[in-house]
Amino acid sequence: MTKSLIKHAIALGALLLSPQTLADTQWRTVSPEKLMVMTLPHGQVVFELAPQFAPNHVKHFAELASKGHYDNNTFYRVIDGFVAQVGPGQSEEASAKEKTLAIESEWTLDSSAITSIQSNDLFAEQTGFIDGFAVASDSKDNKAWLTHCPGVVAMARGNEPDSATSHFYITNGQAPRYLDRIMTVFGRVVYGMDNVQAIKRTSVIEGDKPVDAKDYTPILSMQLMSSLPKAEQFVIQIEDTNSKAFKDKIVDRRARPHAFFYKKPPPVLDVCQVPVRSKVIR
Amino acid sequence: MTKSLIKHAIALGALLLSPQTLADTQWRTVSPEKLMVMTLPHGQVVFELAPQFAPNHVKHFAELASKGHYDNNTFYRVIDGFVAQVGPGQSEEASAKEKTLAIESEWTLDSSAITSIQSNDLFAEQTGFIDGFAVASDSKDNKAWLTHCPGVVAMARGNEPDSATSHFYITNGQAPRYLDRIMTVFGRVVYGMDNVQAIKRTSVIEGDKPVDAKDYTPILSMQLMSSLPKAEQFVIQIEDTNSKAFKDKIVDRRARPHAFFYKKPPPVLDVCQVPVRSKVIR
Repeated sequence: MTKSLIKHAIALGALLLSPQTLADTQWRTVSPEKLMVMTLPHGQVVFELAPQFAPNHVKHFAELASKGHYDNNTFYRVIDGFVAQVGPGQSEEASAKEKTLAIESEWTLDSSAITSIQSNDLFAEQTGFIDGFAVASDSKDNKAWLTHCPGVVAMARGNEPDSATSHFYITNGQAPRYLDRIMTVFGRVVYGMDNVQAIKRTSVIEGDKPVDAKDYTPILSMQLMSSLPKAEQFVIQIEDTNSKAFKDKIVDRRARPHAFFYKKPPPVLDVCQVPVRSKVIR
Repeated sequence: MTKSLIKHAIALGALLLSPQTLADTQWRTVSPEKLMVMTLPHGQVVFELAPQFAPNHVKHFAELASKGHYDNNTFYRVIDGFVAQVGPGQSEEASAKEKTLAIESEWTLDSSAITSIQSNDLFAEQTGFIDGFAVASDSKDNKAWLTHCPGVVAMARGNEPDSATSHFYITNGQAPRYLDRIMTVFGRVVYGMDNVQAIKRTSVIEGDKPVDAKDYTPILSMQLMSSLPKAEQFVIQIEDTNSKAFKDKIVDRRARPHAFFYKKPPPVLDVCQVPVRSKVIR
């Protein structure tokens, strides 16, 4: 890499993180019972499950995975910039017999649990993080909820709030925040988002050749990290969003002290645009 | 597809567009002199250039493309959820001789030209669309600018505002709106965003194997649609964001009348999450 490239790389690099905060990052190790490993033909994707926010959905999802329910399911509704949705291609009778789940889309607000990011966000009174998950809250309703940032995992449903079965989606574009509070988010991608982005789109623009269903991306397997053979397991650590190091990073990110910002942006933060880093130990 | 799948598909489909507005879509045909075709090993990406907002950048970019400047350049800085950046891997001497460009990141506001989307957006007083491009504005400054929604094409630069040369980036994740007004956006992806998303990431998480520079995604060619052999040219039409049909769609999108919304979301719109559709005619 020439110096010129390095100059450009550093300049845009400074937009993400300052080097001094990187060194101080505090990490939280995720229990392998909370990590779901989805294997696609082109690579692995790992979800951190959120039993603290959607206990019944996580329990149901883990049970389905352990039974092989998702193996060979295909992503049948994949829209660039919106969602990749998957579920079993089963008969209507089998589908009608599937257990339905009561929605778990919000909980009683406990402000002290939240690392605050932004007040008067366009969609909510307050945004922040709990355990690396982007949350929003409203003190009048006394509720908090997981927001639809890119990479969240949520159950699809019919028109009724409690109609989710096993079909789920992963958000793959600009946060569809209008789905907040009316869909159950039960996890988020903490590894392999590039593999999510490589899932074959099923929806093409008008005039382009439709995609044949046989080309849809399948799930090869869906297993908890703790259920994988020991040799295939790996450790995932997530930036601790409750740590002082993370809070310092947020202050820095809002102020943008780097010289690259010859004119400072508004001192606001979009919670869905604040990176929460992962690392792996194999 | 079983009825069950269709039910789920329709439910989430309703989140995007109502069928009645689809039928009425008004289209604008983009001149082939304003369409830049970037060919990657895995497919084509087309940018609509924005000479009405960044005339010198567009002129410079088109000149560089016609000279083959970008052919065999590689995407050397690709961060999932942020940007894919590319430029020539040339010597420092050659780089120092590159022409630099004065920034073109905002213009004098003319509110009458804008299809309004949202007041008091987190980052700006007002957002909207001009010619399919997402814009933001501020009446106190009397300025408008192109916003960093997913899929915008903008010039990289060093710390100085007027230091851009030929390296550019495409935004591939949640809108990095803090870059608004300090970078020159000069186009946006109107075709092949899935191919942008398939560009090899060069930045991996800690603990994962670094990506070898020989695996970086190259640009095979960069040519104006009008410069391609006739047989390879195709027509791109973009939803007319000034049309009544589009404005009606916005009203519908804000109100969310579909039964899927058993509880209505806040009546606000994120300009970067409003789809502006393309279609191709071959």
